[in-house]
Amino acid sequence: MVLEYEGTNYAGWQRQHNARTVQQAVEEALFSVTGERIAVHASGRTDSAVHALGQVAHFDTVAPMSPEKFAFALNTHLPRDVRVLDTQRVHDGFHARYDAKGKLYRYDIHNAPHASAIHRNTRLHVHRPLDVAAMREAARLVTGTHDFAAFQAAGAARKTTVRTVTRSEVHKDGALVSYEIAGSGFLYNMVRIIAGTLIEVGLGRRPPDTVSAALAGRKRTLAGPTAPAHGLTLVRVFYDALTGENLDQTLDDGNRILYNKSRVVPDTGRG
Amino acid sequence: MVLEYEGTNYAGWQRQHNARTVQQAVEEALFSVTGERIAVHASGRTDSAVHALGQVAHFDTVAPMSPEKFAFALNTHLPRDVRVLDTQRVHDGFHARYDAKGKLYRYDIHNAPHASAIHRNTRLHVHRPLDVAAMREAARLVTGTHDFAAFQAAGAARKTTVRTVTRSEVHKDGALVSYEIAGSGFLYNMVRIIAGTLIEVGLGRRPPDTVSAALAGRKRTLAGPTAPAHGLTLVRVFYDALTGENLDQTLDDGNRILYNKSRVVPDTGRG
Repeated sequence: MVLEYEGTNYAGWQRQHNARTVQQAVEEALFSVTGERIAVHASGRTDSAVHALGQVAHFDTVAPMSPEKFAFALNTHLPRDVRVLDTQRVHDGFHARYDAKGKLYRYDIHNAPHASAIHRNTRLHVHRPLDVAAMREAARLVTGTHDFAAFQAAGAARKTTVRTVTRSEVHKDGALVSYEIAGSGFLYNMVRIIAGTLIEVGLGRRPPDTVSAALAGRKRTLAGPTAPAHGLTLVRVFYDALTGENLDQTLDDGNRILYNKSRVVPDTGRG
Repeated sequence: MVLEYEGTNYAGWQRQHNARTVQQAVEEALFSVTGERIAVHASGRTDSAVHALGQVAHFDTVAPMSPEKFAFALNTHLPRDVRVLDTQRVHDGFHARYDAKGKLYRYDIHNAPHASAIHRNTRLHVHRPLDVAAMREAARLVTGTHDFAAFQAAGAARKTTVRTVTRSEVHKDGALVSYEIAGSGFLYNMVRIIAGTLIEVGLGRRPPDTVSAALAGRKRTLAGPTAPAHGLTLVRVFYDALTGENLDQTLDDGNRILYNKSRVVPDTGRG
């Protein structure tokens, strides 16, 4: 299944005892639809207040329902801030997490003197003007295969902190400044720490090559602060094994919603 | 003052006894800032669940605060779904409603098999594919000076139902279909009835020239249904008398937020 959710009212993806989570909402909807107690496995956790436009999760069921019908049935039981965009049958060995080949995240900033009322839950408000050119320079230094030890939450323990980033771009459109990052894998809080570092660069508190220094020094203290969760969106999860026309179409739609969300005016127009 | 608000949690703009309204929220913030019981006058009411990116309102105060400071002071007291984007001094005779020379509204539709979780409160979900070309043809027929009697809420009584529409355009961008309409004045529910009619045209239930027939026939029953409130946004209010650089800049910023809200990718890019 491909899922869109606004993370504001959830304690993240993963099921917890004392807090409402997206996984729990999806599993409850699955129970309503199938009568089965079904565990749902996502491509990865998202933290509290983090959003998704294209989270992917898998589940097993014996329900005699055609695969694409599940999305419609589940949406009748889900709260409005969680939507299933597509469901389809996958091969028996498929695992949403272990088979994921990469992910695309976006971090959105509302850069204006006053915050946005309408986008308050999905964009970080930064009231001082950001130097987007400097942010772009810093973002370029993130691309490639590096040891991202400086860009993971303190205390996180991983076998290797080497990761490959295939896209790292800053886009500006009026008051909206968006950072997009794609890669084969991410350390805990890596995107938010990179975003926090880029914001410091944009505010002139650090030079762009602070990124190189942090990559080389491998210490968390060399990078910037962790940017708040609510600016972050998991946009898309990539699977080599799942390039069937159906899923591609869904994900393309997701991307088009994302990239062109409100390009109301033609490119040559009044924008 | 220029105001942005998400109307979801309000019973519209105008103060009411038993329901929370935007006007009330703004007046309470003004009381907190000035200690004065100040009435705020908007360019017009917005209905419950209708949003604004550039509502304009005026008020009188004796508070010894520089005009542009008010926005910052008010925002510290306002709920997060209401933001003051700008405040400035106007001439003594200025009236936000009577001096308004025109307005720009936008009606947003999420046209996809499943609803959007993130935009659930600001876009109407239409799951069947819309024929945007037919909608554009119908929208063109709205432009100009017409008797819009068929496009006002039943029972509304106005001296004249003749209005001039200067822009009437349908834009499509992925799943987002937006209808923009600008004019010198609007009858009650006029934008939502036009939007509801265009949606029927887009669904193939009416031909595009249903618009001409309704304009000529002047009966409410000849037009389509009133589209739900939550897809509607008051984007901008126009004032001849207020073309000072300051306000223009603010409104331009508002427009850029609006028009390019998420044009994350350059025009020539992956969009």
